[in-house]
Amino acid sequence: MLTRVKSAVANFMGGMMAGSSNSEPLGGSDLPLKYPYTRPEFLGLSPDEIECSADHIARPILILKETKRLPWATGYAEVINAGKSHLNEDQACCEVVVVRSRPSDVEPGLTFHYWGLFDGHAGSGAAVVASKLLQHHIIEHLQEVLDVLRNPAQLAPIIQGEEPTNYHLTPTTHRGAPGSPSHPPPTRFFTEKKIHHESMVMGAIENAFKEMDAQIERDKAVFNISGGCTALCALFLLGKLYVGNAGDSRAIIIQGGEVIPMSTEFTPESERQRLQFLAYMQPHLLGGEFTHLEFPRRVQRKEVGKRMLYRDFTMSGWAYKTIEDDDLKFPLIYGEGKKARVLATIGVTRGLGDHELKVHDSNIYIKPFLSCCPEVKVYPLTQYEHGVDDVLVMGTDGLWDVLSNQDVAEAVTGFLANCGPDDQYRYTMAAQDLVMRARGVLKDRGWRIANERLGSGDDISVYIIPLRYGNLQT
Amino acid sequence: MLTRVKSAVANFMGGMMAGSSNSEPLGGSDLPLKYPYTRPEFLGLSPDEIECSADHIARPILILKETKRLPWATGYAEVINAGKSHLNEDQACCEVVVVRSRPSDVEPGLTFHYWGLFDGHAGSGAAVVASKLLQHHIIEHLQEVLDVLRNPAQLAPIIQGEEPTNYHLTPTTHRGAPGSPSHPPPTRFFTEKKIHHESMVMGAIENAFKEMDAQIERDKAVFNISGGCTALCALFLLGKLYVGNAGDSRAIIIQGGEVIPMSTEFTPESERQRLQFLAYMQPHLLGGEFTHLEFPRRVQRKEVGKRMLYRDFTMSGWAYKTIEDDDLKFPLIYGEGKKARVLATIGVTRGLGDHELKVHDSNIYIKPFLSCCPEVKVYPLTQYEHGVDDVLVMGTDGLWDVLSNQDVAEAVTGFLANCGPDDQYRYTMAAQDLVMRARGVLKDRGWRIANERLGSGDDISVYIIPLRYGNLQT
Repeated sequence: MLTRVKSAVANFMGGMMAGSSNSEPLGGSDLPLKYPYTRPEFLGLSPDEIECSADHIARPILILKETKRLPWATGYAEVINAGKSHLNEDQACCEVVVVRSRPSDVEPGLTFHYWGLFDGHAGSGAAVVASKLLQHHIIEHLQEVLDVLRNPAQLAPIIQGEEPTNYHLTPTTHRGAPGSPSHPPPTRFFTEKKIHHESMVMGAIENAFKEMDAQIERDKAVFNISGGCTALCALFLLGKLYVGNAGDSRAIIIQGGEVIPMSTEFTPESERQRLQFLAYMQPHLLGGEFTHLEFPRRVQRKEVGKRMLYRDFTMSGWAYKTIEDDDLKFPLIYGEGKKARVLATIGVTRGLGDHELKVHDSNIYIKPFLSCCPEVKVYPLTQYEHGVDDVLVMGTDGLWDVLSNQDVAEAVTGFLANCGPDDQYRYTMAAQDLVMRARGVLKDRGWRIANERLGSGDDISVYIIPLRYGNLQT
Repeated sequence: MLTRVKSAVANFMGGMMAGSSNSEPLGGSDLPLKYPYTRPEFLGLSPDEIECSADHIARPILILKETKRLPWATGYAEVINAGKSHLNEDQACCEVVVVRSRPSDVEPGLTFHYWGLFDGHAGSGAAVVASKLLQHHIIEHLQEVLDVLRNPAQLAPIIQGEEPTNYHLTPTTHRGAPGSPSHPPPTRFFTEKKIHHESMVMGAIENAFKEMDAQIERDKAVFNISGGCTALCALFLLGKLYVGNAGDSRAIIIQGGEVIPMSTEFTPESERQRLQFLAYMQPHLLGGEFTHLEFPRRVQRKEVGKRMLYRDFTMSGWAYKTIEDDDLKFPLIYGEGKKARVLATIGVTRGLGDHELKVHDSNIYIKPFLSCCPEVKVYPLTQYEHGVDDVLVMGTDGLWDVLSNQDVAEAVTGFLANCGPDDQYRYTMAAQDLVMRARGVLKDRGWRIANERLGSGDDISVYIIPLRYGNLQT
C-alpha cells in the first residue's frame, strides 16, 4: 500500500515534467484508436500545425484562423500545458445542430447551438471521443422529446404521445386508489406534477452524459480509449441557454460586468460528503485499504489511542475521536484544494471514462466514486436584453486555477471595451487575452502572470460566447 | 399495499380533525413517559393554563407572562393547531448555559445562549424529550473541546491536548511515507488542514444531534417516547451565532429589513436525490413495495409498455422511459409541496426519533431514510453592528407555510417600528403579531388571514431574537 500511494502521488499529484510522459499513460493497448489524437476540428489545423501546437517550451496560444468562423462569432483560444503531459488533453467542439425526428421529417427541424469543452486526464482518448460524440447523444435524447419541444406552450405529456392536459383517472381502475364508497376519492391523491419543457431538455442532457459514458465503456472492448475527461457543454435551444457540467471546468455569464455563475465544480472537496456516504454504505469499494473518515492529516501508528480531529459524512464541522487501528488506513479523501484526491488518485469527481482506473498497484476501482451525471443550469437568455460585451465564458480548470471569476470578468469587460462593437474577431481576441493572462510569460523562474504570480502550467481552453446573438436568433 | 397506502394517506396527508385523535397515535405503550407532556418551561404555565392552551376552537396565542423574561429580551409566541392533533406537538427551550470542564473548574466557564424549537409528529414524546435534553448533549460536546475554544486565537490542535501549531512529522516514522533516499519526501504529502474554532462548534452541534437521536432510541427501551420531531436550534457563542437545523422549521435573520436565510428545509422534495440514491444502493430498504424512481403521478397497470415521464436520482430534469411492472410499485417520493411524502408516510426527512415508524401495516422502516444530522450555518454576529430591529426569527413550519420570508420581514420590521426601542416586550409582541398573521381569525369558512387566504391549521411557534444583545455581550 505504501508504494502504491507513493507512486500514485508521484504520478497524479506532482505533475509530470516535460519529456517524462511521451506516451499515453495507459498506452500499450493493442486496440486501435477510435479517433486519432487531434485538436478541435474548427481550428482547421494541418498535421504540422498540430505538432507545432504541442511545444511545451514556447506554449503557443492557438486561436481561430481568419478563414474560420464559429457560430455567433464565438471566440476560442487554447494553449498546451508546460510539460505535465505530452499532448494537450483538452478538447473542444462547437456546432449548430438541427434535430429532426427522422430524415424524411417534413416539419422544420429544431435547431440548437452547442459548445463543448473536455479536459482529459491519464490520456487523451476519452476527451477526444467525447468531443466527437457527446452532441450526438444529446441529439438522440432531444429527438425522443421533439414532439414535446415543438409545442412549448403546452406541458410535457405524462404519457408520451398522449394529451398533455389534465389526465383524468377513474379511481376504480387506479392501482391502490381509495375508491370504495366509504372513501370518497381524495383528489389530491391523483395530482400530477406539471413538467415544463425546460425540464425535458435538462433530462435529455443528463441522460446524454450517461449514454456517452456507457458508450465509452462499451467501445473500450474494441478500441483503445485512454483515460477520462471532464465535460462542460452549453446549448442554446428555444431561447434558453443550458449549461451542463461534470467536472472542474467552469462557465460564467458576464452581464453588464457582473458575474452569474453557470456551473459548480465537482471535486473531492465539494463532493466529500457524497463520496464518504457511498463508501460508508458500500465499504467493499474501499478494498480494505482506505477509510471513509477524513482526518486533517495522515494518522501515525503511535497515535492510536490518542484523540484526533476527524469528519464523517454527516459533518461539515470537525470533532475529536479516539484513533483506532482502522483509522491508520489511507483516507478516501486526502489533500486540500487542487491537491485533494479521491483514493489517492484523482482530483475530479465527475466526468466521462476512467472505467479502468484503479488505485495504483491494487484492484480498487475509482469509477464507482465518479459520477458521469452533469449538473444542468438554465439561463432564460431571451428574457433579457444583452449588450455586445455580455458573454458566456467557458474555461477548463487551467484558466480558473489562476484567475478568479472577478479577474476574468474585469479582463474580458476591459478588453472588449477596446474593440469595435462590430469587430468579428473581438471575442477571439478576448479569448486569446484570457489564455495569455492565465498562462503568463516565460521568465527565469517559470511562467509568470500579473504580480509575479505563477501562471497555469495546465492545458488552458477558453470559449467566449456573445449572448446578444441569442437575442437576435428569435 | 393498497390499504396501507390509503390509510397512511388518511393519517398523514389529510390532517386529522379535532377530536379524531384524542390519544397519542402511538399510545398503548405500557412504559412510563420520560417527561410528562407540557408547554415550554419558560412560559411558566399552570396545569390549568396548559389545558386551556389546547383549545382547538379558540386557539389562544400564548406569550410570555409579564413576570417572565427570556435572555436578550427574546420574544416568543405559540398557538395550537386547529385539530390536527390533540396536543400542541411543538416544543421550545431557551437557556443561558455555562460550560465547565468539571464542576471544580477554576477557569471561568464558557457561556452560550441557546434557543431550541422542536416540531413533533405522530406524538409529542420525541419533541418533549429533545426540548429538555438537546442542549445537554451540546454542552457535553462543547466540554470536550473547551480547552480549544478557550484559546480562540489558535487553530484547533490536530491531536487533542498537543500543540496546535505546525506539527512536524519525521517522514520515516510516518506510515506510508515516501522517505527512502530515492524519494525525497514530498512535503505537500504532509500538509495538515487548518481547523478553526468555528468548525469545532459546528462539529459539536452536529454530533449532539446524533447523540440526542441515539439517546431517544436507547430510552425507548424503558420509556414511552412517541413519534419524532424536527429540531432547530440557535447558539450564540464567542461572538458568533450558530443555527443548526434538522427538519422543516426555518430561521432567518432580518437585518435592516433585508432577509438572510439561516437554514434550509429538509423535505422529500429537497432531499429527493439523497433518498433515491440511498434506495438505489440499498433496495432492500424498500421492502419490495416501493420504487426509487419518481413519476409525475401513479402508474396504472394498463400503462405498462407505454412511455412515461420519470426521474432517477442522478436527474434534475425529466425524461421518458418505457413502463415496466416494477414501476407499478409505489414511488419512494410521492406528492408535491407540503403533500410530498417519503414512503407514503412522512413529509419531513430530517429530525430526531421516529425509530419505530413504519409504512402502515408493513415491516418497512422509515428511519433509514431520515437523517438526524443538522445543517449548521454560522453568522459572525459581532462583526456587524445591529440596530434594535435586527432580529433572528425562528419558526416552525406552521408559520412559513403561509408567510414568506418577505412577509415575515415586512411584518416584523413594520411592527417593531411602532414600538419604543427600549420596550422590553416589543419582541414578544412582534412574535404574537406574527403568530396571529399566520393563524388568522376564525370566520365562517375556517381560519382566514390577509386577503381571505387560509390561515395555518398547524401548531405555530415563533422566536424573535434581537441581535444587538450579541453586540452588547462582548
